[in-house]
Amino acid sequence: MRRDTRAPWRVTLGNIIFNNDTPAGRAFDLLLIVLIVASILVVMLDSVRPFQAVYGAALDRAELVLTLLFTLEYLLRLISARRASHYALSFFGIVDVLSILPGYLALLLPGAEALLIVRVLRLMRIFRILKLARYLTEASVLTEAIRASAAKITVFLAAVLSLVTIIGALMYLIEGPDNGYTSIPTSIYWAIVTLTTVGYGDIAPKTPLGKGLASFAMILGYGILAVPTGIVTVSLARAQDRRQRERSCPRCGLEGHDPDARFCKRCGEGMVV
Amino acid sequence: MRRDTRAPWRVTLGNIIFNNDTPAGRAFDLLLIVLIVASILVVMLDSVRPFQAVYGAALDRAELVLTLLFTLEYLLRLISARRASHYALSFFGIVDVLSILPGYLALLLPGAEALLIVRVLRLMRIFRILKLARYLTEASVLTEAIRASAAKITVFLAAVLSLVTIIGALMYLIEGPDNGYTSIPTSIYWAIVTLTTVGYGDIAPKTPLGKGLASFAMILGYGILAVPTGIVTVSLARAQDRRQRERSCPRCGLEGHDPDARFCKRCGEGMVV
Amino acid sequence: MRRDTRAPWRVTLGNIIFNNDTPAGRAFDLLLIVLIVASILVVMLDSVRPFQAVYGAALDRAELVLTLLFTLEYLLRLISARRASHYALSFFGIVDVLSILPGYLALLLPGAEALLIVRVLRLMRIFRILKLARYLTEASVLTEAIRASAAKITVFLAAVLSLVTIIGALMYLIEGPDNGYTSIPTSIYWAIVTLTTVGYGDIAPKTPLGKGLASFAMILGYGILAVPTGIVTVSLARAQDRRQRERSCPRCGLEGHDPDARFCKRCGEGMVV
Amino acid sequence: MRRDTRAPWRVTLGNIIFNNDTPAGRAFDLLLIVLIVASILVVMLDSVRPFQAVYGAALDRAELVLTLLFTLEYLLRLISARRASHYALSFFGIVDVLSILPGYLALLLPGAEALLIVRVLRLMRIFRILKLARYLTEASVLTEAIRASAAKITVFLAAVLSLVTIIGALMYLIEGPDNGYTSIPTSIYWAIVTLTTVGYGDIAPKTPLGKGLASFAMILGYGILAVPTGIVTVSLARAQDRRQRERSCPRCGLEGHDPDARFCKRCGEGMVV
Repeated sequence: MRRDTRAPWRVTLGNIIFNNDTPAGRAFDLLLIVLIVASILVVMLDSVRPFQAVYGAALDRAELVLTLLFTLEYLLRLISARRASHYALSFFGIVDVLSILPGYLALLLPGAEALLIVRVLRLMRIFRILKLARYLTEASVLTEAIRASAAKITVFLAAVLSLVTIIGALMYLIEGPDNGYTSIPTSIYWAIVTLTTVGYGDIAPKTPLGKGLASFAMILGYGILAVPTGIVTVSLARAQDRRQRERSCPRCGLEGHDPDARFCKRCGEGMVV
Repeated sequence: MRRDTRAPWRVTLGNIIFNNDTPAGRAFDLLLIVLIVASILVVMLDSVRPFQAVYGAALDRAELVLTLLFTLEYLLRLISARRASHYALSFFGIVDVLSILPGYLALLLPGAEALLIVRVLRLMRIFRILKLARYLTEASVLTEAIRASAAKITVFLAAVLSLVTIIGALMYLIEGPDNGYTSIPTSIYWAIVTLTTVGYGDIAPKTPLGKGLASFAMILGYGILAVPTGIVTVSLARAQDRRQRERSCPRCGLEGHDPDARFCKRCGEGMVV
Repeated sequence: MRRDTRAPWRVTLGNIIFNNDTPAGRAFDLLLIVLIVASILVVMLDSVRPFQAVYGAALDRAELVLTLLFTLEYLLRLISARRASHYALSFFGIVDVLSILPGYLALLLPGAEALLIVRVLRLMRIFRILKLARYLTEASVLTEAIRASAAKITVFLAAVLSLVTIIGALMYLIEGPDNGYTSIPTSIYWAIVTLTTVGYGDIAPKTPLGKGLASFAMILGYGILAVPTGIVTVSLARAQDRRQRERSCPRCGLEGHDPDARFCKRCGEGMVV
Repeated sequence: MRRDTRAPWRVTLGNIIFNNDTPAGRAFDLLLIVLIVASILVVMLDSVRPFQAVYGAALDRAELVLTLLFTLEYLLRLISARRASHYALSFFGIVDVLSILPGYLALLLPGAEALLIVRVLRLMRIFRILKLARYLTEASVLTEAIRASAAKITVFLAAVLSLVTIIGALMYLIEGPDNGYTSIPTSIYWAIVTLTTVGYGDIAPKTPLGKGLASFAMILGYGILAVPTGIVTVSLARAQDRRQRERSCPRCGLEGHDPDARFCKRCGEGMVV
């Protein structure tokens, strides 16, 4: 870690903005959450016609003010971060920019303010504020499990995409444009709607042969649905086992406890399960 | 446990109402179940128009009588309970109150009698009456597994909610009010309907770009569906293993048997698997 | 096992009908399968209007002949079985009766012939004919896993049924008869359609509050879907482990092999995995 | 392996076409992928009416040229393969023929060009080009897991097919042709749509009794959905365990490492997890 070369006021500001150990930091984070929630509500209400007709002007003004406030916050974060570039390129740094841009874009391109909904990602900070380290650990177990099964899932997705393409083309041949299968891409869309068991019913087979192929595709989809579940379950069981075996006693540091150990087996210290 | 200071008649009453070891207690419980089932049927039939047109008055009278009976039962439970407050605040105590209130509320607010359907929760007592300790054990294994995965599921739900918000807003931009996506909240509703694979079809994408994004969302939902299943499966496997390892021999009390042991390994006593 | 007191011709007949080790037995079984398939096709085609209009009389005659043949077969089975009552009360014995009755019932009650479709269950014999002991073993692993999780699934179903009843009643209050929720039973039907992610869309929420509750129910159903999968997966893993540990070497009879052992660890005999 | 008796120019050609270690081989494979993607796009666009109206002639010509090129490629593969019959009967050999035939078929039978979509299977070569041995390993774990559970899944499918047939026939009796259940095959189609939770809504029960049976079928389907998932998960866990136990150290060849070992336990060589 580099030596901290920030001026004292930037360190103080950084502590308020990035930490939440102090009362000031906690107050800042709380205020931020309130503003984000308000901002999401404004964007949502602005899209509901009856509301927009009556409160349109007020909502637009609120949107502008919130965007300006978030811009200010972003600048303050850039200034007070230990390393501005590090923050700017982090997950939250990018989300923070994306949460501001559509506000200015909407001045040029009416309607773009709907993109402000991306601010919902900023709510993820709530986990940090609540100091729920437990949630972060769980999130990382989930992430690890998903990453471990990424290659398997890629192979699986490639197989599913080939399948829906072929089933889609066959249905296009069998049912044809008159029954709603207007083109191969539309038929592929239908195949995805069917194989994922969503089943809108906006397009549905009408000929006996089409119903037969659709039935076959559904039963296939039924079996296929089992595969990603199996992949993730196995990965998750493993990630959790590894995590638990690697967890160390908070007092003596011993690793390699049983998955369900509640006390350190060497020093008897209580441990989080 | 406090000394029991109830008068003898209250003790007798309490044994009839709360226990089911005696013939009187079993008869009381059986009668209660019959009345609850009758009451649920009355509420349901009362909502079916053709029935209501013909038997409306009779159904209303039956409803009133049943509500009065359940009120009497609740008062008797309060009187005869070892500790009235303990009962009143227990799960069944609260359900019992909620099962009476809408009956009186309906006198002021027509239509509120539909809330009487909450009486269905009272049927849970059936498990107690059937003395199916086995079912209670299973229920507690399920509860334990769900509680153990609560943190993981919270993280997962937060991710899903962010996802449907963003997908909803994008579809609102792409499809717009003319294709049924009348507002961002409505679009989020559509995204939930799609990602959970329910797929009513009351709103469905009509533009090629919208169909493309919907296809992407469905395949994503397909993969996402696997995560909670994986979480619960792993938790359940663990809760069951722990439960079985902790189960003790009914004769000698030894713990730590193999998960599938049918006899105590020390004294040979038969054990429930 | 009782001494076999059947006359020699009944023993011979029984070997042809119940066994399939001899050429005669195999020919009988094969003929039977052909007749069953023919009979199912006849029932199906008879329900398709265009077919019925043209070939109705021929199909009816074929149905009658097949029913007479199956009646004859049933009588022969009763006569030649080692113990007639044992066969009559077995799974296939009951299915065989049910496969005949609607044929005669249809003479009194037109339309009842659709019930002849129950003959599809007779096709299960195909597994026996193909001598696929392997399939029977698999079926029994599946059955064992399902039986082991029966209590857990009962608790789960009770919870789900309570849930759909309460959600249904709430939706009846919120949406009301004008939006398709014509009665509480209908609303419960909708709740089941939604929670199981089937989602026909014949009834769908129209008010904002109804859409909100529906969204909540869907996300809940999403999580709930994970529970039976978890239950069955854990049971299946166990049933399979137990089965494999109990499988014995065909030469020396040793049990307790590793789940993936391909050769007996004592005598080296090859084993089915 | 037989001695290679091909003429030198055939060996060189074979190296370019079948290998991708040399720059020439890699260039050939890359060109091929580009042509396949182009060909799939042409087939898709040709099915979209507005495109076809404007660019129909150009698309047809492109299709013909691509088919001729793929025919040439197939002939070159046959000539340069070490064993022509071995290639012709391999998975890719068959796919390659199927990717050409509809192009000629379309000259006789307009519309058959939609079958050219089968070229999507040729894209599978992309995994080979990317040299992602990892993906192939994952694919084989998946394949092994699916093969291991084939017998169980067959039993399960037989049960599901019997179930949908019986439920379909019952619904045909209950709802009848007036409510959309026009024949038993159509009702079976509905039962499949329902049990797989696809739920188009093109056919939906209208009578109370039909809704009751449908509700029962849906809850059943809910439970049934759990079975294939359980089967695949257990198989996958096993296939992966076996694979990992059998994986050998790249330096000393030792087998039997722990599933999560990252280094050979004898010689310390790093290993792929």
